[in-house]
Amino acid sequence: MTTDTISSRSRLHDPALRSFASDNYSGVHPEVLAALADANEGHQIAYGEDVYTAALQEAMSKLFGKNVEVFPVFNGTGANVTALQSLLPRWGAVVCAATAHINCDENGAPERVGGMKLLSVPTEDGKLTPALIDKEAWGFGDEHRAQPLAVSITQTTELGTCYTPAEVKAICEHAHALGMKVHMDGARLANAAAFLGVPVREFTSDAGVDILSFGGTKNGILFGEVIVALNPSAADGLIYLRKMNMQLSSKMRFISAQMLALLQDELWLKSARHSNAKAARLRAAVEQIPQVRLTQATESNGVFAVLPEGLAERLRTQFRFYDWDEAAREVRWMCSFDTTEADIDAFVAAIRAETA
Amino acid sequence: MTTDTISSRSRLHDPALRSFASDNYSGVHPEVLAALADANEGHQIAYGEDVYTAALQEAMSKLFGKNVEVFPVFNGTGANVTALQSLLPRWGAVVCAATAHINCDENGAPERVGGMKLLSVPTEDGKLTPALIDKEAWGFGDEHRAQPLAVSITQTTELGTCYTPAEVKAICEHAHALGMKVHMDGARLANAAAFLGVPVREFTSDAGVDILSFGGTKNGILFGEVIVALNPSAADGLIYLRKMNMQLSSKMRFISAQMLALLQDELWLKSARHSNAKAARLRAAVEQIPQVRLTQATESNGVFAVLPEGLAERLRTQFRFYDWDEAAREVRWMCSFDTTEADIDAFVAAIRAETA
Amino acid sequence: MTTDTISSRSRLHDPALRSFASDNYSGVHPEVLAALADANEGHQIAYGEDVYTAALQEAMSKLFGKNVEVFPVFNGTGANVTALQSLLPRWGAVVCAATAHINCDENGAPERVGGMKLLSVPTEDGKLTPALIDKEAWGFGDEHRAQPLAVSITQTTELGTCYTPAEVKAICEHAHALGMKVHMDGARLANAAAFLGVPVREFTSDAGVDILSFGGTKNGILFGEVIVALNPSAADGLIYLRKMNMQLSSKMRFISAQMLALLQDELWLKSARHSNAKAARLRAAVEQIPQVRLTQATESNGVFAVLPEGLAERLRTQFRFYDWDEAAREVRWMCSFDTTEADIDAFVAAIRAETA
Amino acid sequence: MTTDTISSRSRLHDPALRSFASDNYSGVHPEVLAALADANEGHQIAYGEDVYTAALQEAMSKLFGKNVEVFPVFNGTGANVTALQSLLPRWGAVVCAATAHINCDENGAPERVGGMKLLSVPTEDGKLTPALIDKEAWGFGDEHRAQPLAVSITQTTELGTCYTPAEVKAICEHAHALGMKVHMDGARLANAAAFLGVPVREFTSDAGVDILSFGGTKNGILFGEVIVALNPSAADGLIYLRKMNMQLSSKMRFISAQMLALLQDELWLKSARHSNAKAARLRAAVEQIPQVRLTQATESNGVFAVLPEGLAERLRTQFRFYDWDEAAREVRWMCSFDTTEADIDAFVAAIRAETA
Repeated sequence: MTTDTISSRSRLHDPALRSFASDNYSGVHPEVLAALADANEGHQIAYGEDVYTAALQEAMSKLFGKNVEVFPVFNGTGANVTALQSLLPRWGAVVCAATAHINCDENGAPERVGGMKLLSVPTEDGKLTPALIDKEAWGFGDEHRAQPLAVSITQTTELGTCYTPAEVKAICEHAHALGMKVHMDGARLANAAAFLGVPVREFTSDAGVDILSFGGTKNGILFGEVIVALNPSAADGLIYLRKMNMQLSSKMRFISAQMLALLQDELWLKSARHSNAKAARLRAAVEQIPQVRLTQATESNGVFAVLPEGLAERLRTQFRFYDWDEAAREVRWMCSFDTTEADIDAFVAAIRAETA
Repeated sequence: MTTDTISSRSRLHDPALRSFASDNYSGVHPEVLAALADANEGHQIAYGEDVYTAALQEAMSKLFGKNVEVFPVFNGTGANVTALQSLLPRWGAVVCAATAHINCDENGAPERVGGMKLLSVPTEDGKLTPALIDKEAWGFGDEHRAQPLAVSITQTTELGTCYTPAEVKAICEHAHALGMKVHMDGARLANAAAFLGVPVREFTSDAGVDILSFGGTKNGILFGEVIVALNPSAADGLIYLRKMNMQLSSKMRFISAQMLALLQDELWLKSARHSNAKAARLRAAVEQIPQVRLTQATESNGVFAVLPEGLAERLRTQFRFYDWDEAAREVRWMCSFDTTEADIDAFVAAIRAETA
Repeated sequence: MTTDTISSRSRLHDPALRSFASDNYSGVHPEVLAALADANEGHQIAYGEDVYTAALQEAMSKLFGKNVEVFPVFNGTGANVTALQSLLPRWGAVVCAATAHINCDENGAPERVGGMKLLSVPTEDGKLTPALIDKEAWGFGDEHRAQPLAVSITQTTELGTCYTPAEVKAICEHAHALGMKVHMDGARLANAAAFLGVPVREFTSDAGVDILSFGGTKNGILFGEVIVALNPSAADGLIYLRKMNMQLSSKMRFISAQMLALLQDELWLKSARHSNAKAARLRAAVEQIPQVRLTQATESNGVFAVLPEGLAERLRTQFRFYDWDEAAREVRWMCSFDTTEADIDAFVAAIRAETA
Repeated sequence: MTTDTISSRSRLHDPALRSFASDNYSGVHPEVLAALADANEGHQIAYGEDVYTAALQEAMSKLFGKNVEVFPVFNGTGANVTALQSLLPRWGAVVCAATAHINCDENGAPERVGGMKLLSVPTEDGKLTPALIDKEAWGFGDEHRAQPLAVSITQTTELGTCYTPAEVKAICEHAHALGMKVHMDGARLANAAAFLGVPVREFTSDAGVDILSFGGTKNGILFGEVIVALNPSAADGLIYLRKMNMQLSSKMRFISAQMLALLQDELWLKSARHSNAKAARLRAAVEQIPQVRLTQATESNGVFAVLPEGLAERLRTQFRFYDWDEAAREVRWMCSFDTTEADIDAFVAAIRAETA
């Protein structure tokens, strides 16, 4: 059986299609696909007692510290809600940026499934600071107020910006001093690690983050994220919460094997450097086009821009991408592990042509 | 890059390992793995607007009827809870067998995430009947009682038994007459279709089932189940419920492609016939061993037996399997799409040797 | 302004009406009404920082032990759900009798609001035992099973029976040995105390019960129950849970003042002895009527009986009461603090007349 | 038995105590207390089938329109959460002012118990407008976004301001045009009716409000609020939701009788006019004190003011009241149905003395 034979039978899509809509429009890195094949055949204990999940525990320990505990789950929303629940009593609330994925893009799962209240704070660039946290971190002991017992930050943020290790550390110290715990939504953690150029533990475990949603899907795997309890004593009941939140994969070996493939030979960082570099290339080119105004620093794989009226619609006849703030004509362009220089150049050429 | 090269690098497990613990100990059918590769490369719209999910909708329509609507999700618990929520108002309750997976094996997800009450009924063989349903289908309009507005049946049941089309129809007619809707947990639907030897719609859509959890993971795919709204007018808000229940896969093409591989050339039925046949072989052999008492009809891929004291422990030094009712020394032996005749024969030989 | 004047204006009902339907059909004891007037006028800090609530804390400490903590709430369902939540992590389940109020009469509030799973066990007389608890107290550590971490018993039970102090102690010792906590639903606690004739702490705090729903509404007050954390170290977050469960009364002084009136000069016990005595009178008379079969011991203020066909309907033309098990023609007759001997005698006369 | 005798026994508090902390620090209007006595004695069907609740239905119909449906509940949080749930599917969200009681003072009950997401909007004066609603009323049909299907406004607002009938009507028309329903939190509805001087239906049912939390506790009753479904076709399942939300009073006659006392001879309006007038008197006096800056219009029974540093602390040695915005030194002074001119004058004298 050759790939060609299979393709002639079951490939339904045009693999030449590209877009700038989201890093989850892309598919799977070949190394990841190969890892699935390797993990196949024979029987492995279901629900996480397999050798791949054990190896993942070991691999994550090397990355984040020997005491961390890992819990593979299906997707980012599942990782975030489960991780936050593990930090909080039933009466807890979470301080987050107004733009946080948990606040904007999870259809209320943190509230409805997690039973938590989100206390959101407007920010300039998607990044919380101790001072911004203080806008909602008050009322401790007041039974009328949902108790702000956790902070959630996103790295890289939904606006493509990165927290420095010092910024994360300042947040964690501030939160801990208030009796709050810290969650990091790392759906694009790899892009931050690639951008910052420091070991990932400098802005996670070593900076004081208690629990992490380690992203995989947006960085070239099929599906799967990993909750990493960086400070396991801060989190309670993760094995039960994962199951009751419907995030327990029976054939867990296949999530773990994908994650191991990502970690092997730093594929996760290589892919992130690639997508970051493509975004930087796009930004550099667009900066030369006066009609387009860039609105955020490009510190990862996304570029945010305000376009002149009508431009978005014209570009979309060739390339798919999303509005970020429709009223302000702000759009988001995302690069992926498989975005090529040619993709960028074609897109830039189209922008130039449409603004000429 | 050859498969051999990859394997030498990243295969961590012994593919010769076999067990009779669960059909989710096995891996992925080669056709499914090939389908993943075919669905890879290029960009597809995330969250279900891809061509594979569109094709899956079409394929399921052929199977169940042209008006059905399909919603791929991550796992069986997610499918069950989301499907049941779509049938019920906030004050709804679900009549189910006491042995139902939703009642026993989902850590309260139906109650905690779904917000529903389960009204469970003891059964002999895991199968509800109109008379058994009536034990809990009462109190309509009484505000003190969680309103029994849905019935959930499992096909094949958790005890390996099958409902006949006539039995399903009788349940649906009874439930509908009471104003109740009907959900079928089809985690092992393929095994029922293989056992009954009739078109699947005879005991689903044509019998009056309103919504179905169509299983894949236990039948040779990596991960993924599909909620099939057989009667879409009975279900409300599935797109929202799937997302808020953290069951929306971003790269949905990969669930849909696996499901399409299952449906292609009836792979789902072939695999189910295979695992059923292996269970039948096991049963036939065990029936000859007087010390072992079989406790349920073998109508799918599982065999249930009461063992003499000590036998389970001795067998487990070679083969992994689960207790079903520890106090009664009842065990469950499951066969899978990749169980071989040699596996069965070796297992039977071991039982014979230990009981000789 | 005299009472007469007011009555002529706003009394809408016929105070001569009596029934045997429920102890919450009756009104308020005159001492309780007087206590409301006494607690009125002037300003008191809302939400429980008033002098009446402080006095209630003291009074309950005398009754149950000096370390107990009291949390007045609105009603019994609120008390039960809030108390149970305080004992349990998010993944907890509660073992209870199948007939428990929390299981049958609270429209799933424990599941829907409390987020817990109920593991119910059939009983003969509404009473759990260590052996019955063991039917559901298993699977500790298994992530697929809602973790059975609490037992809830009702005193007196929904069937009018009482646990002896020794029975409660045996349950608590068994539960604690398993790592489970114990809740007592004491909606009719006073009736048990009156029946058993021992200090209430003998079958509550001294017997090892961790938390108690102390009932008032069914014993002659307007509204109000009190959660008494007998073992405060077993319960967490009650002040927050009470508020988020919508059970925090702003003018709490009026719940506390009613409860104080109940406790003053043992009014709660006097009223319970009264209603118990009326039930005993009813039972004694009915025992003489061969067509009526009594189905439970009469150990509090309710009598359960199976009636010959048609009798219930004929009696209901004069007296209101409820079916307990319609199929079995079993009915429940409840006495209240204001039930009179004449009420009983008239009812018995009617039964005699209809069975003659 | 005379009141004196009872008082000597069970009055524990000093009825001369007054404060400006909250209208729920006060007690019960004598007419309400008398109504409780009138409703007492004899048996009435529990859970709302009593004659007082029937009369309340009739009385509310006169006030709001003949088709309205009334559901007495225990408290304001219970009324709000239950009312909003009845308007919304499980995936619904509620647009509200950032200062709304449901957002700030209910410990997340709307999210945790109600399962809804609140989309809060900053306002100047606690009042939403169509334009402010539009800041969050978007994303209809997007499964990632909690669906904004209801608006909740508070009348009078938490800042003591009132919506005019025209303003309410504009909001309702806008919301309905978007497919959204409208809830009004009327914890202090009487104060608005008193201030506006128009029939209450002009700014409720006639203006298009779908469901109302009709307040009683803050206007001189013991406890109790009433959900009034002004447009019953917009609300679903209220009888079930009330029970499962633990808001169903067994002896409901006593909530209904209090509410009837409020409605009789317009006691609710008289009391509200009284408290409004006292707030106006306080404001008029304070306006003469240059060191105190008033921050909101005084359109009901509350006065909001920014105080010079240290003044709040000094005043609190004599009078209790709350900070509204501690950082800004803004305080809230509330008047009640039993606030006297002498109370106001003494308070004003104290402010004058401390600012002299």
